[in-house]
Parts: sequence; C-alpha cells; structure tokens
Amino acid sequence: MLYFPFHPMLDRAMPIRSLAFTAALFLSSPALAADAPATPSAIVAQAPAGAWRPIAPDALLVMTVEGGKRVVIQLAPDFAPAHVANIRALARAGWWDGESVYRVQDNYVAQWGDATEKKALPPGIAANIVPDYVRPLATLKGAAVPLPYPDAYAPRTGFIDGWPVAMDETSAWLPHCYAMVGVARNLSPDAGTGAELYAVIGQAPRQLDRNIALVGRVIEGIGLLASLPRGSGDLGFYAAGERRLPILSVRLASDLPEAQRPRYQAMDVGSRSFADYLRLRANRKDDFYERPAGGVDLCNAPVPVRQAP
Amino acid sequence: MLYFPFHPMLDRAMPIRSLAFTAALFLSSPALAADAPATPSAIVAQAPAGAWRPIAPDALLVMTVEGGKRVVIQLAPDFAPAHVANIRALARAGWWDGESVYRVQDNYVAQWGDATEKKALPPGIAANIVPDYVRPLATLKGAAVPLPYPDAYAPRTGFIDGWPVAMDETSAWLPHCYAMVGVARNLSPDAGTGAELYAVIGQAPRQLDRNIALVGRVIEGIGLLASLPRGSGDLGFYAAGERRLPILSVRLASDLPEAQRPRYQAMDVGSRSFADYLRLRANRKDDFYERPAGGVDLCNAPVPVRQAP
Repeated sequence: MLYFPFHPMLDRAMPIRSLAFTAALFLSSPALAADAPATPSAIVAQAPAGAWRPIAPDALLVMTVEGGKRVVIQLAPDFAPAHVANIRALARAGWWDGESVYRVQDNYVAQWGDATEKKALPPGIAANIVPDYVRPLATLKGAAVPLPYPDAYAPRTGFIDGWPVAMDETSAWLPHCYAMVGVARNLSPDAGTGAELYAVIGQAPRQLDRNIALVGRVIEGIGLLASLPRGSGDLGFYAAGERRLPILSVRLASDLPEAQRPRYQAMDVGSRSFADYLRLRANRKDDFYERPAGGVDLCNAPVPVRQAP
Repeated sequence: MLYFPFHPMLDRAMPIRSLAFTAALFLSSPALAADAPATPSAIVAQAPAGAWRPIAPDALLVMTVEGGKRVVIQLAPDFAPAHVANIRALARAGWWDGESVYRVQDNYVAQWGDATEKKALPPGIAANIVPDYVRPLATLKGAAVPLPYPDAYAPRTGFIDGWPVAMDETSAWLPHCYAMVGVARNLSPDAGTGAELYAVIGQAPRQLDRNIALVGRVIEGIGLLASLPRGSGDLGFYAAGERRLPILSVRLASDLPEAQRPRYQAMDVGSRSFADYLRLRANRKDDFYERPAGGVDLCNAPVPVRQAP
C-alpha cells in the first residue's frame, strides 16, 4: 500500500529520467494506447520532435553555485529587452562571480546579486531603464494561444512564443508565476538594472505584475533555490551569522565552450501537443481524479521545457 | 541603495517582531496616520483585539521535528470531521513519534508519516472513510465572506469561519492553497486515513480540490517543510541514501501541559479589519505599486494568523 496525494503517473511534469517509464506504462496498456494519452505528463512524453522549439544559447543564463550545482535561466528578450541587454552584459563581465544568494523569503522569492549593494557596475549598464513591463501584442512573435479560464488579475491570459502571458486587448505582460525571474528594484520609478535578481519560490505573487520587470524563468534548478534556508531577517534577508549561498559564476550559454552548454527546448505553444496538454491540465480524467476541475490557472500550467534529446 | 522586489513595509504579512516597526512607520507619517492604513500588513498590525478569534487547543497539532523545531497545524474539523477524528486519535496514540518527512517534491508537497507503509494503525482509526470533500453551506459556522474576483477552478470563492473556501451555490470546500494540509491517499475511492499527510509547498495545486481530503493548514513552520531538500526519487520521495527528516513527536496542543501549548488566533473573516485587508490585497496603492491589480487570487489572500498576544 503506497499512499500518494495523487497517482504517480498522473501529475506534474515527470523528471526527465521518468519520461521513458511513463511512456512505457501507457504503451503497455492496449486500452490506453489506443486512445490519446490521458495525462499531461504522457502528452509531454509523447510529443513529437516538431512540437519542440530550441532555446537560443544567448537566451540561457547559467548560474553555477557552491558545489558546482547549476541553475539555468531562460531569458525573455522580447518582453524585457533593456533589462536582458544589461543582464547579458553583466554575465559577460563576470559581474556575479563571487556574489551570493542573500535573501530567501518563504512563499515568496529567493534573491541574488551583490549583498553589499556597493559593487560598481561595469561600463555600459543602463541605470535608468524606463519601466516597460507591458508589451504591445504586435511586437511579440506568434499568435496568442488563449487560456479560456477566468483570472483574478487580468482580462485575459494565455501563451505567446513559449511564455505565459497576461493580456488586455492590445498588450501582454509576463506573470509572476513560480520560477519566474524578475529585477529587484527600489521604489518607483526606478526600474532596477538587472544586477539584483529574484526568482519566485511560492504562490504566484501576481500583484507584482506590471509593477516590476520580469526577465525570464528558471528552467533548471529552481528546487535548489526554493529549498535554501529562509533568512531570519526582515523580508527573508540573511541575518548576521546566516550563510549566503556562494555564486561561483554566471555565464550565457553562448559564451560557454560548446561541450559545456546546456541545450534546452520549450514546447511550441501553437502545437497540438500543447493544446492537448492544456486541455488535460484543466480536466484531469484519470483513475485518481474523480472530479476534473474544468479549468486551470495560468501559473498552474507551466509551458513544458526539456533538455534537448 | 537597497534593492527589493517590493517595498519592505508593503508586502506579505510581516514577521511578528516587525509589526511594531511597521505600525511606527505609519504613525510617524502624519499624512498616512490620518488615513486608514495603506497596506495589508499595516491592517493586520493595527487590527483590534476584537478582530481576532482564538483557535481551540484541540484544533492545534504540534509536530516537533529534529532539533526541537516546531510545525503547528490548525485542524479543520468542520470541513473534514472523520479525518480530523482519526488525526486526533493518531496524535493521542503517539503514532507519528519516530516517523519522518519522507517526501519533498518541488513546487508541490512535503509529505510525512510512516515511510515503510507497514506500521499498524492504533485501534479505532477509521480505515474506509467515505470521501466527503464537499460540505453543505448550512453545516458550516458563519456566513460566507465572498471574494469578488474570478477563479479558474470554482464558481465562487471566499472565506468561512476563518478558512478560505471554494463554493458553488449550496456547498463549500477547502482549496489547495500554499501550506494547506491534506490526506495522502491511494487511488479512489479510498480516501486515506490521515496517517500520511502532506502540506502544499508551491503554486496552489487546485486540481486536487474535491479529489482529496484537506484537513487543515500549517500556521507555524511551513518554511521549515518548504526548505527541506527535494527528494531525488520519483515524485520527490527520498531515495536510498537521502535523509528523511525525523519527527520526534506529534501532539494536540490540548494534550500538552498548559505552559507548552502554542496559542494562536485567526482573524475574524467577518471583521472590518479583514474586509480592509482583502481590499488592500487586491489593490496595492502604496509607493511601490504603480498599478494595483484590482483583484486577488483566493490563495494569495491568506487569512491572517498570529500568536496570541
């Protein structure tokens, strides 16, 4: 007797090494194999190569922390061009090397950069970026794939070019979902430089949408950031005597030797596989679920991302 | 220059030791002191004694883990009477003493109980609880306080008797918000006994609502559970060689000596303070927020809970 809060094969994206197992499970069942896969995980496991889009190496930020552990962030240049330009320049200058994760607030954010707040920025870093949290739909690549369920924060939600988006009639903005990465800032109208970054590690703090710049998402290693000890200082800053996590280096994948580059793909949000995935995220109908929800929150339907096979 | 992803005084419930500081900040500003407090945290800090309701000692489950650290769970007997009866009996029998937290899956759950799945249950534990995830509104205490924003999972949401609820016209159920505690179970129609429990440590997995029994919420120590190392086994179970967190004891506060009992209060959801809190959670209008959301998700407006002063 093994107790789960859900059936093992039927929830969340499986870790990569389990995908083959998941596929085998379904293929081994003639009744199931004849139908479309019945779970989001199975959809992801069986998505054809054409349902995946490579992530450009200069949109992958590789942060190596103590012990050689790796956090990989996908940048969103189309949504935050000025901040992403700064972040690329900071990575190329090695600015974060030797810095730290210095703040972890439970159910909120892990934040990193220069804890002393005194380290000079390299030349060429824009220091007074005009807030540009909202992007005209016409400037973004590809059509919006709507998520047809109500949202407490925005008139519409959906997906564009591999990203979750909140939208109104003419524009789109990135939402503060789990693992999204943003630019810490002081009071407005300062929009921050991108030197101090945070990742969401709890319930989506969507009240921050359109108030602070989001620049990407953690696609590898969010569990490492989310499991750091919480800081006991105000707002989760590490207090004296609490140990900050050392950052060894931060580099763009495109600046790493070919053999060391992580290679990732995101699911094409215009693909049939993604449509099936969304439908099943909103309507679980396998053995475990007696009562499908009939809907899913934007932040509870993360775009599948995988290492290139 | 201190960078925040938000202004320090203007987000999340403050840790208790900061409340006085927050209040002082506002009182020191004549312009602000003349108005109602402008942030949810300030509302909580300034709520009068009459806005708080004590939590009964037999609804507080005190879990002591390695190092003497404490996790306190508020039970919800009106929402899950059969499971809460089991949980009280298991605590009185000392059933969890010496067991462990044996599963931590990132952005999902931490789960505890008997990892061997072989430990006999004490006499009197109901083993075949008929699933009763949904409660008729007429059986619950107090009127529903509506949250007037759309939800992807339920026709209506709000708060009843100190708890967040999803609702239809005639009934209510607890939602899978951050820190909510549920009963791990096998495949349906088994509803689980309550011996194996989990707490939500990520984005609200609301698809589980009405599919699995929720029995309460962690009101102290959720950061401890959420910062445990993630298990590398499938679904976050700790694999061989990974260390489970030892549970020293689990007791009802009512069974502890008076001096050792934690004493907690939840905000009265019918109070003026709670109405103000909700309004400001949905409409941040302080220096940091340029653009109030005009809405808030059910799981992003946790009912304030505090230690009794």
